[in-house]
Order: sequence, then structure tokens, then C-alpha cells
Amino acid sequence: MNDRKKPGPPQGTPAPAPAGTPPAGTPKDTHYAKLRRAHRDQKAGGAPAFRPRQSTPPGDHAPEGLVRLYGLHTVRAALDNSDRRIRRMMVTRNALERLEITDLAALPFTAAMVEPREIDKLLGSDAVHQGVMIEAEPLKPKRLDALGETNLVLVLDQVTDPHNVGAILRSAVAFGAGALITTARHSPQESGVLAKSASGALEHIDHIEVRNLADALGELHEAGFQTIGLDSEGPAELEKTFSGDKIALVLGAEGKGLRQKTRETVNVLARLDMPGAIRSLNVSNAAAVSLYAARTFVRRQ
Amino acid sequence: MNDRKKPGPPQGTPAPAPAGTPPAGTPKDTHYAKLRRAHRDQKAGGAPAFRPRQSTPPGDHAPEGLVRLYGLHTVRAALDNSDRRIRRMMVTRNALERLEITDLAALPFTAAMVEPREIDKLLGSDAVHQGVMIEAEPLKPKRLDALGETNLVLVLDQVTDPHNVGAILRSAVAFGAGALITTARHSPQESGVLAKSASGALEHIDHIEVRNLADALGELHEAGFQTIGLDSEGPAELEKTFSGDKIALVLGAEGKGLRQKTRETVNVLARLDMPGAIRSLNVSNAAAVSLYAARTFVRRQ
Repeated sequence: MNDRKKPGPPQGTPAPAPAGTPPAGTPKDTHYAKLRRAHRDQKAGGAPAFRPRQSTPPGDHAPEGLVRLYGLHTVRAALDNSDRRIRRMMVTRNALERLEITDLAALPFTAAMVEPREIDKLLGSDAVHQGVMIEAEPLKPKRLDALGETNLVLVLDQVTDPHNVGAILRSAVAFGAGALITTARHSPQESGVLAKSASGALEHIDHIEVRNLADALGELHEAGFQTIGLDSEGPAELEKTFSGDKIALVLGAEGKGLRQKTRETVNVLARLDMPGAIRSLNVSNAAAVSLYAARTFVRRQ
Repeated sequence: MNDRKKPGPPQGTPAPAPAGTPPAGTPKDTHYAKLRRAHRDQKAGGAPAFRPRQSTPPGDHAPEGLVRLYGLHTVRAALDNSDRRIRRMMVTRNALERLEITDLAALPFTAAMVEPREIDKLLGSDAVHQGVMIEAEPLKPKRLDALGETNLVLVLDQVTDPHNVGAILRSAVAFGAGALITTARHSPQESGVLAKSASGALEHIDHIEVRNLADALGELHEAGFQTIGLDSEGPAELEKTFSGDKIALVLGAEGKGLRQKTRETVNVLARLDMPGAIRSLNVSNAAAVSLYAARTFVRRQ
């Protein structure tokens, strides 16, 4: 029923899967058992960062509670991240060499040398796994009060598409953002696709999850951040709005943009100036350009 | 056999489909008949811009020689492009209203009012068609001597992934680039996925196809362009390399980067300065940031 969607800039982002629901498990995991567990996890604040998807694309049928990460950069970054709990690795001889692992048996988790097709079988042939796949626990999101010293953060208002969020994470790390802040609901969910698009960036940046975005923006204001909402109809050009020492860029999903409450709460709404016939960018491209412009500004301070 | 791929920055781009081969047709279209026809088409210079894919993703099983375009923005832009030859439209009542088409019968092609699920059936449920799909002839690529008056062009050295190329086209139009230049071989191929990612941009920018990229760069030099190859190991920062009135940005595929001959031919190799732990961006993000920086520079001239 795509037909019923609101008009507006086209949507790269599929409808968000319900948050907090783990992937389908064994037959005894009934729908209601899962909902109860998800509810309990959320109450306990123990939900994983980038929750595993409920509706899993090929390659993401990981054992319950785990994510499958693949690709040389992605796995290398996970191996180097002391916060990442890895349960199992499947690796080809070739990939093992490239990862510079000399002793498979010395790894602190189960690791098996396999043929490439055995990984293909698990991930589907579309996943560019480059001969290595791990099953790991998703990273735990942090709370806003854990935000470290930084002068640049990126806030996503219900952007969920894993390709876009992965590319955004990569740009955020490249341009030195200190954290990615999302809401607990309608937030990106950790998956192999997201991790592969992030190309290791997932392991290099804090993911902060908040319940209420407007409250979080208020806390950012108190911490000295200027919050700037990106909006193609924004009254000012982004470059002319920068002020202060710390910047928080706030981006909404393509098509939907920022929610009304978010628009009302940010310090300023700004647009990227585009002279051409098209006046909106893919959300990950808009994030990359905004991060670049903000980084250029804060470096001059 | 992903395992056999060369190491390097991770690859968002799948292996390119052989260029010049039309999509699979009726049983009588033998492999060799198709190769002969592709060869003849290429000789005649009549190959379509962004050739239809041979290996078609769901939603791209268009009749031979045609592409299926869908989504409100994409179709609206195609309707407004006098160079676009449309053969057939399927549209829901709802989408018809949003496209502001008052008389279906007055359209210069076959148009049928349908239920959304009839379009779902053709495109697969993943395609966000928003209630409208057209079958159209691919746009014809132009030759380099057709390049109009412009001070900014984008050159792609074997970037083929349709999501990335679509997003790149969108950024190129948004930042006012005058053309997208690609090689005839290993070039992006027009498809529903590419067009949807481009969100109408396909209809707003000239696609120029060249046989030999080094020769084309030479012609750009003669036309007064400074050619800048983006390279994460480039000796200079991009912002510090800009000179002259006209700029041609040259980007390679993720993982592979620019080919050796391309690297040797551009005026200068430059990098985007990234202070973070990751030093390469998704190719469409790199294109967006480079276009933004170049547009900012040429506007000051």
C-alpha cells in the first residue's frame, strides 16, 4: 500500500520495524513471550544499541540476541573493540591472513576455518563478506549523561534505513563527531547490513539512546551545544547559522523530515543551499555535507 | 567467492554487470544473439544512457529495451522531461491526483488506472512505488562534445552501484553540476533502483559517455577544466587544490579507487580531510561533500 504514503521528497527509508522486538527465534518463542521479554528489557534499560531487526533481510538470521557482522573492515574493527562480545567466528584461510590472525585457537571465542560457500550459505550471496563472519552481542547504547568531551554530535530523528544509518555512522566517525544520538523508538537497529555500510564505524562512536528527543535537546543546550535542525525549507543557510563552540546537527528521515516537536525545540532550523533543480539530498549525503561544514566551522574556533 | 576480492576499503559496489547487454528477453534471444546486438548497438553509438541491467533485481524485469520507473518524484520528473519516451503507465487513483493528472486518456501513451497491488506484483513489494510506475525508453547518453556551458562536472571512474549512482546524480543536480561523465564500459546502468535513488535527478542532468576516460580528461583540460581526482591518500586537501574557473571532480569506486591511468591523467589528486578514526566515506557521501566544496569555491570566483 505504498500508495497511501504521504507525498513529499521520496523515501529511501522503509517503514521502521517495531523497536524492542528480538528476531524470530525457536517455535517456543511465541509472539507474546517476545513482547513480554522486549518490554522487560526496555524497562531494565538493557536493550541493545541498534536493536536486532524483527523483519530480517537475508543474511541477518542470526541466533536470537546476536548480530552477524561480516567483511574485513567490519570484523577487524569489532575484534579491536574491547566492548564487543564476540561469540563465534567463521573465517576462510585467505581472510584469516588478511586479518593477520596467526592462531585461531588462541582467540577467546569459537572460531572455525571454513570455505567461502559456507559463509555464503548463512548470509546469502548478496552479502560481501570477504571470507569472514562473526556472531556477536549487539553493543549496548549509552545514556545521554555518558556523553564525553566533544564539540560535535549528530542527532537522528527517526532515521531507520540501515544502509543510510551505516553510511551516516561512517561519516560521523570520519568527521570526528563524538556521538550519535537517537530515540529509543523508531531508531536504527544493529544488523549486518548496517554494520557493513558503517564499515567498522559502529565500533568507533558512542551510540546514545534517549526516550524523549526534545528533553535530550534541552540537555544538550544546557551542556553548551547549539542545536541545528536540517530542513530543506529552513530560513537560514547552514554555514551562516553556526555559532558557539559546540554543535549538534539534527536530521530527520527523508520524506518525513523533522517532527514538529523537534522543529520547535532546536535552536535554529537551517538549510543546505543547493542551486540546482533538486533541493533535497539523500539523508546520508545531507548528513555528510552538514558534518563536513560543521567540522570546518568548529575547527576554526 | 567474496573471499578472493582484493583487500582495501570495503566495497559497497557489487561487481559490475557486463556492459552493453540488454536484459534477458524471450527464449529465442540466445546469448550470442544478444552479444551481437549489443556489439552492433555499441558500434552504432546508439546504446542507451545507463544501460538496462542484465542481472535484474526484483522490480526491474522490464520489457526488453525499456526501464521501469516508479515513485511520485521520479515519474513526475520523467513526465516533465521532453526527451523521455514513455510507453506505458500504471497508476492508482490516489497517485493520479498527486501527480495532478486530470485526464488519463489525454496522455500520449497507454495509461491504466490500477490498484496498488497490481504495481506491487510487477515491481516486488520492496519497491516504494507510491502508486505509479511507467515503462519508458532509457535516456540516450551524449558525447563529450555536447557538454554545455558549465563550471562544474562530475566524472565517475567505474562506479556502478545503482543506489550510490542514484544518490550521486541527486547531489550532482542539487549542487548544480552540468554533467555526469562516465565510461561506456563499467558504467552505471539505468534501472528503477537507480532512478528511484536519483529521485528525478536522472531527468535533470546530461549523462555523457566516453570510451576512454584519459582522453576525455584531456579534452576537459583543453576546455579549461581543472581535473581533481579524489583519493583518500591524496597529497593535498581538496579545499586547497581548487584553482581556475571550472572544476571536474573525478571519483572512483569504493575499494578500488581511481584507476592508475586516471590517477596519472588528472591535474591533481586530493583528499577530503577527515580527523576521525575512519578515513574514507561511502562513495556517494564523498561525492556530495566534494560537490559542495567545489560549488562553494566556484561560486566565490
